[in-house]
Amino acid sequence: MIKVGIIGATGYAGGELVRLLMGHREAEIKWYGSRSYIDKKYADVYQNMFRIVEDVCKDDNMAELAEQVDVIFTATPQGFCASMMKEEILSKVKVIDLSADYRIKDVNIYEKWYGIKHASPQFIEEAVYGLCEINRDRVKSARLVANPGCYPTCSTLSVYPAVKEGLIDPSTIIIDAKSGTSGAGRGAKVDNLYCEVNENIKAYGVAGHRHTPEIEEQLGYAAGQPVLLNFTPHLVPMNRGILITAYASLKKEVTYEDVKAVYDRYYNKEKFVRVLEKGVCPQTKWVEGSNYVDVNFVADERTNRLIMMGAMDNLVKGAAGQAVQNMNLMFGLPESTGLELVPMFP
Amino acid sequence: MIKVGIIGATGYAGGELVRLLMGHREAEIKWYGSRSYIDKKYADVYQNMFRIVEDVCKDDNMAELAEQVDVIFTATPQGFCASMMKEEILSKVKVIDLSADYRIKDVNIYEKWYGIKHASPQFIEEAVYGLCEINRDRVKSARLVANPGCYPTCSTLSVYPAVKEGLIDPSTIIIDAKSGTSGAGRGAKVDNLYCEVNENIKAYGVAGHRHTPEIEEQLGYAAGQPVLLNFTPHLVPMNRGILITAYASLKKEVTYEDVKAVYDRYYNKEKFVRVLEKGVCPQTKWVEGSNYVDVNFVADERTNRLIMMGAMDNLVKGAAGQAVQNMNLMFGLPESTGLELVPMFP
Amino acid sequence: MIKVGIIGATGYAGGELVRLLMGHREAEIKWYGSRSYIDKKYADVYQNMFRIVEDVCKDDNMAELAEQVDVIFTATPQGFCASMMKEEILSKVKVIDLSADYRIKDVNIYEKWYGIKHASPQFIEEAVYGLCEINRDRVKSARLVANPGCYPTCSTLSVYPAVKEGLIDPSTIIIDAKSGTSGAGRGAKVDNLYCEVNENIKAYGVAGHRHTPEIEEQLGYAAGQPVLLNFTPHLVPMNRGILITAYASLKKEVTYEDVKAVYDRYYNKEKFVRVLEKGVCPQTKWVEGSNYVDVNFVADERTNRLIMMGAMDNLVKGAAGQAVQNMNLMFGLPESTGLELVPMFP
Amino acid sequence: MIKVGIIGATGYAGGELVRLLMGHREAEIKWYGSRSYIDKKYADVYQNMFRIVEDVCKDDNMAELAEQVDVIFTATPQGFCASMMKEEILSKVKVIDLSADYRIKDVNIYEKWYGIKHASPQFIEEAVYGLCEINRDRVKSARLVANPGCYPTCSTLSVYPAVKEGLIDPSTIIIDAKSGTSGAGRGAKVDNLYCEVNENIKAYGVAGHRHTPEIEEQLGYAAGQPVLLNFTPHLVPMNRGILITAYASLKKEVTYEDVKAVYDRYYNKEKFVRVLEKGVCPQTKWVEGSNYVDVNFVADERTNRLIMMGAMDNLVKGAAGQAVQNMNLMFGLPESTGLELVPMFP
Repeated sequence: MIKVGIIGATGYAGGELVRLLMGHREAEIKWYGSRSYIDKKYADVYQNMFRIVEDVCKDDNMAELAEQVDVIFTATPQGFCASMMKEEILSKVKVIDLSADYRIKDVNIYEKWYGIKHASPQFIEEAVYGLCEINRDRVKSARLVANPGCYPTCSTLSVYPAVKEGLIDPSTIIIDAKSGTSGAGRGAKVDNLYCEVNENIKAYGVAGHRHTPEIEEQLGYAAGQPVLLNFTPHLVPMNRGILITAYASLKKEVTYEDVKAVYDRYYNKEKFVRVLEKGVCPQTKWVEGSNYVDVNFVADERTNRLIMMGAMDNLVKGAAGQAVQNMNLMFGLPESTGLELVPMFP
Repeated sequence: MIKVGIIGATGYAGGELVRLLMGHREAEIKWYGSRSYIDKKYADVYQNMFRIVEDVCKDDNMAELAEQVDVIFTATPQGFCASMMKEEILSKVKVIDLSADYRIKDVNIYEKWYGIKHASPQFIEEAVYGLCEINRDRVKSARLVANPGCYPTCSTLSVYPAVKEGLIDPSTIIIDAKSGTSGAGRGAKVDNLYCEVNENIKAYGVAGHRHTPEIEEQLGYAAGQPVLLNFTPHLVPMNRGILITAYASLKKEVTYEDVKAVYDRYYNKEKFVRVLEKGVCPQTKWVEGSNYVDVNFVADERTNRLIMMGAMDNLVKGAAGQAVQNMNLMFGLPESTGLELVPMFP
Repeated sequence: MIKVGIIGATGYAGGELVRLLMGHREAEIKWYGSRSYIDKKYADVYQNMFRIVEDVCKDDNMAELAEQVDVIFTATPQGFCASMMKEEILSKVKVIDLSADYRIKDVNIYEKWYGIKHASPQFIEEAVYGLCEINRDRVKSARLVANPGCYPTCSTLSVYPAVKEGLIDPSTIIIDAKSGTSGAGRGAKVDNLYCEVNENIKAYGVAGHRHTPEIEEQLGYAAGQPVLLNFTPHLVPMNRGILITAYASLKKEVTYEDVKAVYDRYYNKEKFVRVLEKGVCPQTKWVEGSNYVDVNFVADERTNRLIMMGAMDNLVKGAAGQAVQNMNLMFGLPESTGLELVPMFP
Repeated sequence: MIKVGIIGATGYAGGELVRLLMGHREAEIKWYGSRSYIDKKYADVYQNMFRIVEDVCKDDNMAELAEQVDVIFTATPQGFCASMMKEEILSKVKVIDLSADYRIKDVNIYEKWYGIKHASPQFIEEAVYGLCEINRDRVKSARLVANPGCYPTCSTLSVYPAVKEGLIDPSTIIIDAKSGTSGAGRGAKVDNLYCEVNENIKAYGVAGHRHTPEIEEQLGYAAGQPVLLNFTPHLVPMNRGILITAYASLKKEVTYEDVKAVYDRYYNKEKFVRVLEKGVCPQTKWVEGSNYVDVNFVADERTNRLIMMGAMDNLVKGAAGQAVQNMNLMFGLPESTGLELVPMFP
């Protein structure tokens, strides 16, 4: 039984970790960390957990926690994990960081886009970017995993094969993303009130969203060269779900079958990436509550562009589910343990 | 392994049965019946099931089906199950009917409220009303279970202890219910279009909804006398969830603790009924996707009334989940097999 | 041209006042009071007003404001208006208070339910309860109008004729209310976040909501005796709209036509109260954005109860619209000036 | 007083025409055409119109209608208006067609994308594309106006100045659009049911949506050369609103101020196009219920692209509002008559 500690257990991603780990037969949560709710019953914060979780919330003492558990999930704001990280901790427990602290290899880019100083850059090199479908082997032996961002997970998986196989010109990539509101977190802000989000859609962070360099880095590895792209997120009136629609110019004439063969080669054996059938557009509702990413594409011969689409649940494959997937790999468990979640519809 | 056949597998309740049974280690679905989609891949109707269910839809041939499976779920319109039922079928398989055909013991009341002739009234007597928390023992030995309606499940469980223990005057009961739109089914009607339901709330079936006599019958058993009550359902802009708010006059002075003791006595050992803590009102979101019913109450000394509340997921405890719970009882499995579902929030 | 000052112009009710007054040909807003946004452009707070309102927000200086305008609307938290009120102010301007400060005639009841000391009880007697359909004449000559609460407006108008004409027993009245989330205001609270409200419904303030004594007082006038009732509000995932469903025992046998005749007698000539046709249930969407209250009823002979329903837009007839209606009466304008709003559907 | 006839008065666009014309002091509706509801009271179809509209629905007899009114609005499916159009009709009344029948000048393109034969191509040349901000003068003298599609209105107005002034390379334009569900019409289809749309987002018509050639034609006029572009619409869980996010490569280095100057030159004097302030992204909620289009842009020097955004209410500026704007121009009225609608928030 893997002993688990969660720091940031009362945010939405933290809550989803709890939900998933409750159904994981090889893991048990030993520490519900939440600075805001210390000594409060966890089930009083998330009443869905009434009579399921009996524990109270504890503080964020990572050093103490490292003594008690086998793995720590940090579902915390940017900068927290980096500020706590020490060799002493990593020598005792594995850490899966759901924040952006170790996702970007170039610390200057991190510091520029996030506007904070990185407190422990010495661990960046070691940290493995936990996009399991791409970095599976390195995750298996990692001590520190940087769990990918929600948008980058969906974007990268949707576009990766086309870039890697040279179907599209990386300099033409445009990613237009749409997210449910749980991605904005549980902080009490006017912008996230029901009445402000409902019956409304808007872009935000245009040309400046922090997930941009993360996507660029990952697609850069696929392209074998630096990639600059446009990434525009939109806030959609729904709780869960991310849909990305990506555009890029084709480098050669291709048929549907050509592209399908490429995507199948990468994802045929992937449990959690479903390449849909011809003509079927991904919908977020079809993956809700599950760890799936549904992807598909259309090759538009009129404009010579490839349009790529991906849908997933931002709290599962985009956060807690992928974190559990990484944990499974790190501890030698079957990758889908605790993640056999059938999407809920409607 | 229990072999399962579903008739009406492509309605919302049928789809939820499939979702739940996919996670049930002792059952496997052998027949996806759907008159409207014969020979179509099930996963083409419900794309969430892509790469999870490979079967195609079949017709509604109950006689043939009875040869192949151990239990048949009928998630069909009123009248269908009654029209197909024969001793020959019940001698071969167990049947769990999610429609109203066998819920009401007085065939005249059924025929009056539903406006159709009952095609096989000879089985009404035998059929067990599958509200597990109340009729557990009789369900265990049943061949034919009438799975309770969604509103009656939530209403009865919320009010039952107070009636049974004589706390309230049954002639004063008023139940004001609110339901998500999946309760209206998947039929293509203007009234259920997104734009008609969204940003809107309305009552419907006022003083005439068909679930009224079902609730009256069940509470009548508790009261030991016939009960007449008002039941008013409302359509709420959400997919899932039923909330009921019930009112009745107290027959004697009671404290919170008195009433709590009564509810605890009935539900203390019930896994799926959670009596919330003092002052906490049930919310549908806290049970979404799960088989829980959350109940609570307020004793209002100003008006001398008891206000009782209950929340559940209409597709789970209100339909498919309860049906699986009944199946578990009928086949001697632990009652919660396949139903260890943690509510999804948000 | 009536010169208008608004205190609390950046709350939802304040914003709706601005929307309505922009289309009012006899009024112009001279003062956008908002303590939180002093010196900020009003249109930067509510971007829908971009290029429509050019003013900046000012403070809450009621004394100074009284020098500059003909009428002040206070769309402020409980206690504010009472704390500012002086004879000196009322001698200069008319005041329409959208808070509860002057709605309840018995100051002890106010102080008990609101939990605050009333700062200027000497004006309670003079204040007119601005439910125009009932107190029209007294509103016309008022200096100080207590604009009714949202729930009390909908509840009282839906039930009033039946009580006044003795059709129902006032001691049996139960009001089950459902409201959109704008009623909770624009404060940044976790409970009102999109993800907490969406796909969810709950009761709140059970047996203790502050609008209870206000409704009881008004229906008490109709009954000619004190009335105690149960009022239970619910939070519904929609922006606007209140629906109430009220229940009471009939005092005599009545037909639909009897009750219809009573309601018609009261509302036949009322522009803003629409008694719907037989069998049609009110829906909040049908009145959205307008000043209408749609009411209807069902006489249930089975239970001998009258079920009364009412729907309105909580920000219009439930707040800003009724406030403008009161202003029109106070200034001798046609009552519907600026309120000829056609409901928006869908 | 302009006498108005509407054909297709019971669709969502037709209903919105009725709402707007009820508030138009120079127009009165004489004919509510609706094949599906002949002889039914209009207010029984749209209960928001109870006691506002007393008329019953009539058939689609355009010839008879032409005798009785001054202008006919056809809010009908593709092909209907073309099939009825005759010189005889146009000689008697003005026609504003809300369908696509006369929007595209090249009949071959129309027939290819719409898959139907055009029944009266002889009127295509004469028809004026009713995008008032661009074709104002020609609209004034038109007999037949092709009211622009919802997506093309928002897309063209958002991108037009940048193309016209040569800021961007037209061959690189990509338009990613998001629409509320009222755009899908009031037909009873499973895909548009509440439960299918709610908590969901999807792309549709990828690389093949019929509004593509309409946008290409209009931007082609601006570019002075044929334009091919990608247009991808998405269905968003909200009733009203369209947001477009458009991308194109800059042809030269520009500052924010350069682009702002261009947009201001085109829209400074336009009442219904609001160029937002620097850094403010358009939101559909800020224009809901009004005839405004809010536009803005970001010049991304990193990728050398211009990102253009536009938001509007698809039923107002995207359909009925623009149709009324066209009517005003055709009849010599001030362009904003009946369109002084303040957006409703929240």
